[in-house]
Amino acid sequence: MQDGNGLDHLAGERAMAQFDLQAMKVYLAGGQREYEISTKMAQLVANDPVFSKEDRVRLARKDLYKNSLRKAGHAWKTILEKGLSEVEGLKLRHFVDEPTYTDLHWGMFIPAIKGQGTEEQQHKWLPLAYKMAIIGCYAQTELGHGSNVQGLETTATFDPTTDEFIMHSPTVTSTKWWPGGLGKASTHALVYARLITDKKDHGIHAFIAPIRSLEDHTPLPNVTVGDIGVKFGNGGYNTMDNGFLRFDHVRIPRENMLMRLATVTKDGKYVRSNKPRQLGYGAMVFVRQGIVIDASIYLSRAVTIAVRYSAVRRQFGNKDEPGELQVIQYRTQQSRLFPLLATAYAYRAVGFWMKSLYADVMKRLNDNDFSTLPEVHACTAGLKSITTSVTADGIEECRKLCGGHGFLCASGLPELYAAYVPACTYEGDNTILLLQVARFLLKTLSQVSKVRPVGTAAYLGNIKQLSTQNCKVSQGHDWLNTSVLLEAFEARSARQAAAVALRLAKGSGSEAEFQENTPELVESARAHCQLILVSKFIEQLQTGTPEGIRKQLEVLCYTYAFSQLIDNAGDFLATGYVTGNQIALAKEELKHMFDKIRPNAVALVDAFDHTDDYLGSALGRYDGDVYTHLYKGAFKESLNDTVVVDGYEEYLKPVLTQNLWAPHSKL
Amino acid sequence: MQDGNGLDHLAGERAMAQFDLQAMKVYLAGGQREYEISTKMAQLVANDPVFSKEDRVRLARKDLYKNSLRKAGHAWKTILEKGLSEVEGLKLRHFVDEPTYTDLHWGMFIPAIKGQGTEEQQHKWLPLAYKMAIIGCYAQTELGHGSNVQGLETTATFDPTTDEFIMHSPTVTSTKWWPGGLGKASTHALVYARLITDKKDHGIHAFIAPIRSLEDHTPLPNVTVGDIGVKFGNGGYNTMDNGFLRFDHVRIPRENMLMRLATVTKDGKYVRSNKPRQLGYGAMVFVRQGIVIDASIYLSRAVTIAVRYSAVRRQFGNKDEPGELQVIQYRTQQSRLFPLLATAYAYRAVGFWMKSLYADVMKRLNDNDFSTLPEVHACTAGLKSITTSVTADGIEECRKLCGGHGFLCASGLPELYAAYVPACTYEGDNTILLLQVARFLLKTLSQVSKVRPVGTAAYLGNIKQLSTQNCKVSQGHDWLNTSVLLEAFEARSARQAAAVALRLAKGSGSEAEFQENTPELVESARAHCQLILVSKFIEQLQTGTPEGIRKQLEVLCYTYAFSQLIDNAGDFLATGYVTGNQIALAKEELKHMFDKIRPNAVALVDAFDHTDDYLGSALGRYDGDVYTHLYKGAFKESLNDTVVVDGYEEYLKPVLTQNLWAPHSKL
Ligand SMILES: Cc1cc2nc3c(=O)[nH]c(=O)nc-3n(C[C@H](O)[C@H](O)[C@H](O)COP(=O)(O)OP(=O)(O)OC[C@H]3O[C@@H](n4cnc5c(N)ncnc54)[C@H](O)[C@@H]3O)c2cc1C
Ligand SMILES: Cc1cc2nc3c(=O)[nH]c(=O)nc-3n(C[C@H](O)[C@H](O)[C@H](O)COP(=O)(O)OP(=O)(O)OC[C@H]3O[C@@H](n4cnc5c(N)ncnc54)[C@H](O)[C@@H]3O)c2cc1C
Ligand SMILES: [Ca+2]
Repeated sequence: MQDGNGLDHLAGERAMAQFDLQAMKVYLAGGQREYEISTKMAQLVANDPVFSKEDRVRLARKDLYKNSLRKAGHAWKTILEKGLSEVEGLKLRHFVDEPTYTDLHWGMFIPAIKGQGTEEQQHKWLPLAYKMAIIGCYAQTELGHGSNVQGLETTATFDPTTDEFIMHSPTVTSTKWWPGGLGKASTHALVYARLITDKKDHGIHAFIAPIRSLEDHTPLPNVTVGDIGVKFGNGGYNTMDNGFLRFDHVRIPRENMLMRLATVTKDGKYVRSNKPRQLGYGAMVFVRQGIVIDASIYLSRAVTIAVRYSAVRRQFGNKDEPGELQVIQYRTQQSRLFPLLATAYAYRAVGFWMKSLYADVMKRLNDNDFSTLPEVHACTAGLKSITTSVTADGIEECRKLCGGHGFLCASGLPELYAAYVPACTYEGDNTILLLQVARFLLKTLSQVSKVRPVGTAAYLGNIKQLSTQNCKVSQGHDWLNTSVLLEAFEARSARQAAAVALRLAKGSGSEAEFQENTPELVESARAHCQLILVSKFIEQLQTGTPEGIRKQLEVLCYTYAFSQLIDNAGDFLATGYVTGNQIALAKEELKHMFDKIRPNAVALVDAFDHTDDYLGSALGRYDGDVYTHLYKGAFKESLNDTVVVDGYEEYLKPVLTQNLWAPHSKL
Repeated sequence: MQDGNGLDHLAGERAMAQFDLQAMKVYLAGGQREYEISTKMAQLVANDPVFSKEDRVRLARKDLYKNSLRKAGHAWKTILEKGLSEVEGLKLRHFVDEPTYTDLHWGMFIPAIKGQGTEEQQHKWLPLAYKMAIIGCYAQTELGHGSNVQGLETTATFDPTTDEFIMHSPTVTSTKWWPGGLGKASTHALVYARLITDKKDHGIHAFIAPIRSLEDHTPLPNVTVGDIGVKFGNGGYNTMDNGFLRFDHVRIPRENMLMRLATVTKDGKYVRSNKPRQLGYGAMVFVRQGIVIDASIYLSRAVTIAVRYSAVRRQFGNKDEPGELQVIQYRTQQSRLFPLLATAYAYRAVGFWMKSLYADVMKRLNDNDFSTLPEVHACTAGLKSITTSVTADGIEECRKLCGGHGFLCASGLPELYAAYVPACTYEGDNTILLLQVARFLLKTLSQVSKVRPVGTAAYLGNIKQLSTQNCKVSQGHDWLNTSVLLEAFEARSARQAAAVALRLAKGSGSEAEFQENTPELVESARAHCQLILVSKFIEQLQTGTPEGIRKQLEVLCYTYAFSQLIDNAGDFLATGYVTGNQIALAKEELKHMFDKIRPNAVALVDAFDHTDDYLGSALGRYDGDVYTHLYKGAFKESLNDTVVVDGYEEYLKPVLTQNLWAPHSKL
């Protein structure tokens, strides 16, 4: 119940829960150990005032950035002082919760050296990087080229007379543009450039270029470097110094080219190594697994805020009951909110599965077995694309579900969106990734009679059967069967892929024909990925889920699958696999799932275990005390420093007194 | 062609255009006179340095707000000095292009007094408001109540002993919260409060409450007022002082209650007037017409940026052609971008139609004919909901279509989104509006045998036929027929409405049953509105479109209709009206439309006639000189004021030198 100030402790909500909250927390954390580390690190950050996010949206860029440097340094100090493990350190930085230069240093610079450097190079650079005696960034994208890495224009021309490369930015479009940490923090950049020896262009290779003095941090001679400017949102990604970089014939030693896969010799000969290029795939799977888990985390933050607030917020009555209804009672609210709750759970499960996929890939790479790589590449590319797009849209949807108050930064949601949404663009533009999935599907189908599809594409081996048998659901509860659901997603995906493959097969196989069909190809790739998501969520449930949470996870799994089915009903219907009536039955089943979620909703978001500090939201507070905190929060706004606003004398008074032309007016 | 700096004058694009650009500009402006006023005002703003938007995303809130006051004052001065007409003044403020207190003063405060004040009250307040001797805002929403106006808690208790109302905010949740212009600028607030006379609660009424001294702008005694804090985006809506307001038993004269519809007499008697309440509907239609036109304008800005940039941006090759392709060549890019271009045109046409609807409503109100009002109310509520939601999503889609660079504020897109997206929430939450449409549809259907549906609901009179005849398209070009398209949208909407009405009719008619079906009801309302949009776009084309632009408008109209059909294929298929094959045929026709748009794309966005100043986008520049301007723009970033960043000594050097515990470290 609400008190006079709208305070509603949500205790009533929590009392309704029908599952083992603690078991769910451990499940979502990925295990007991992970749960304990997370809890410890979250508390450590929450209790340390240096990490406060309070003022973030109010700071001017310079102060925002400076404070971010302060936090990054303090995090590093904390890690060293407390002797935190690598996993703990990562978690700590995760909870500090703002993009900063160390993300790229640890997440891109170091892994690139590990993946592309020779052992000698690793021995030289990694110790420096590990103790942060150098700070590195990942400088691939240029003003003119992002997605098409092969089109990069920066050159690295070998000069055998001095045994050096000459790094150069020949055009405006060749300016490096976007690398995080480059703008103001990094001392070194991992630069992708065209390797030229003896006037021959060998394509794109990686080089370590020192860019700032280790003495005084000034840019090195002939290096032009800076920050590219303000990005979406107040705080958001603006804590990061995404940068630009131009070289004017800057010389670096020959050894600074990363030479694991190819070497330039002292006399300028270009030699490819015999190391299999596929070794890099392991890292890629690892990164994408992290992206899917991150999607789940970001989405779960937005969902936590929206669910708690929807339980506090009351609006309109209901003839049948006294008082106003919590907006979470409204079916329209549920039908937008609960599928997102289920999605956050689904992505968590799929992320866990990807962990095992990663282990499998690493094992195979060790055994020189590259057979599953195309499938793994397509699968993880597609999952990156879908989960980041859905999460970005889902955060905004949660914000809108909070009505007007969601538009305030105090809700925590605007910044969450601004910080998250570039995930749709970096690590591969989401459309381009789906086109890669589509190419894989086409290839798989073209060989299906000869090569048995593996892993997440195995169902395509069944294409004949999937193309002919239609859905057998005749009553609502027929849908409550995971095999029925799986077959529906398989049939729909197989049929969409087959339809576009058939059209292409009729043609000449030109690139232009492929282009012509890309909208359908993208749709087909999406269908394939949605199948993977549904099937892996189901699979995860069926393997050893603790008793105390199994039922809730099942409800969430059905909720996820039904809402995917309904949101994509056009595809399912167009392939002829389901009928309009079967879709209508699924809609009813989905509502039954909403009824099952409803009493557990608050507890299901509690299970994500986000601290109030991490959420940074007046609407999403654990204690439900929304209104007092919104109100108190307003007094921190700088405009409220004085009761009469700065600007009144110059710009308001002349208007009010019709004195616009008086000499004192500065208008 | 591109030069070495990626400069591409877009001249080649413009040379391809196949229509009369000037005629299109005039059409889009709404006529020759409107075109001339627009052009003049746009230039006036573009050429006046006070109105520059350059630094907007870089200013701290206080400076941002102060500068906004400066602009608002300067706009007012310009209007007075140049003796601009009301229409010109409105346009001028439109091109200044930032939310500010005058929006509410002119757009809400004055119209409310006109609509709800007696003639005497109008005589008293309007002259003051017209010369801005007072500044007013519209204070309806409270912390605890927005959508449910009847739940507002602020009280206005009549005290006959002093002939005054006592304004009071009894709880935290009763705090007025959100009104634009309230926070720092307004001297008066139009306050919605519960009227209480002699302990009787008469519900919500409007009162004019003075809140700040006209002498020195300090808040009046017992008034607590201020700004509610930072909102989504950097500049965006943060130029506006959305405010909070609390009254602690503040007395205002009895005459300050707006008494057109109800009066409180000197001795405290509450008397309803005999003025028809419906008179307010005219204003509502007017406001919503403006919202639909605004949706078109905002969407057209985003589309202009994305189309021009997509023509400049080149990425990846094509085996069949030399060099890289403009990304606008890619079908996936077209299939996301061109429907939005068509949508911007569609909303313009529908906005024009709403103008005539407004004229019709005013005429009828004059004649005391209220018969069309329910239909008009539902239609305009639905159009507000759909067009604002689609536009907000469309702006974000355009941003993503620009890849990484769209994420920079220099693209103009983040701020456009942040400033626009609250339109989904204010003037009625979009979901709640659709539920109103649904209630209207249900009522119309329940009476269809007795009362002939009118206006945009007239097709429901045909429900029998629409429910039985299916789509007859058998070849692609069969779709190229506006009656075929119209029937499809009518049949789909009628069937969806009938299906949910039938289910409800089987029940007891309880509110709970209505609730249970709200997801389907919202879908059905959406279907009805999509029909209106398609049909009014078609209707507008068929009435006197100039020859030189008719063909392009037809292409855009088909593009719009086909993409709506395809995006909602699930609904069309589920109702059984179309088959999967018919949808596939529509997809092919849509691609043909893309081919027709492609050579005209840049000219079609040029026709919106946005100045570079108004767009404020390096990506959307008329001259296509994207890269040099992105690069130059970076040098305005405050972080680049010094080559070594502020914070290096304190927070980076200690990290780099492993000197974290040295006494000078401030970490
Ligand atoms: C916040 C942020 C951080 C970043 N950090 C880094 C970093 O640390 N280091 C770094 O090197 N880079 C970084 N980037 C750059 C990022 O990797 C690129 O922006 C990204 O790869 C997308 O490339 P693009 O911008 O060139 O998009 P484009 O490829 O130009 O995309 C524009 C449009 O064209 C379409 N398109 C392009 N090619 C095709 C095709 N073949 N078929 C169909 N459609 C196509 C796309 O779908 C998109 O709609 C960052 C970017 C952001 C936003
Ligand atoms: C930028 C901005 C400017 C504004 N300017 C002004 C101003 O000048 N003056 C002013 O008075 N106000 C202003 N407002 C307030 C605005 O009018 C309200 O925010 C708006 O009416 C939405 O109401 P709410 O915030 O209470 O949303 P809520 O009603 O609380 O909505 C929360 C959620 O509940 C759902 N919901 C609520 N009721 C129902 C129902 N019956 N059935 C199903 N779902 C339901 C909604 O769909 C939504 O998802 C402004 C708001 C913003 C963001
Ligand atoms: Ca700012």
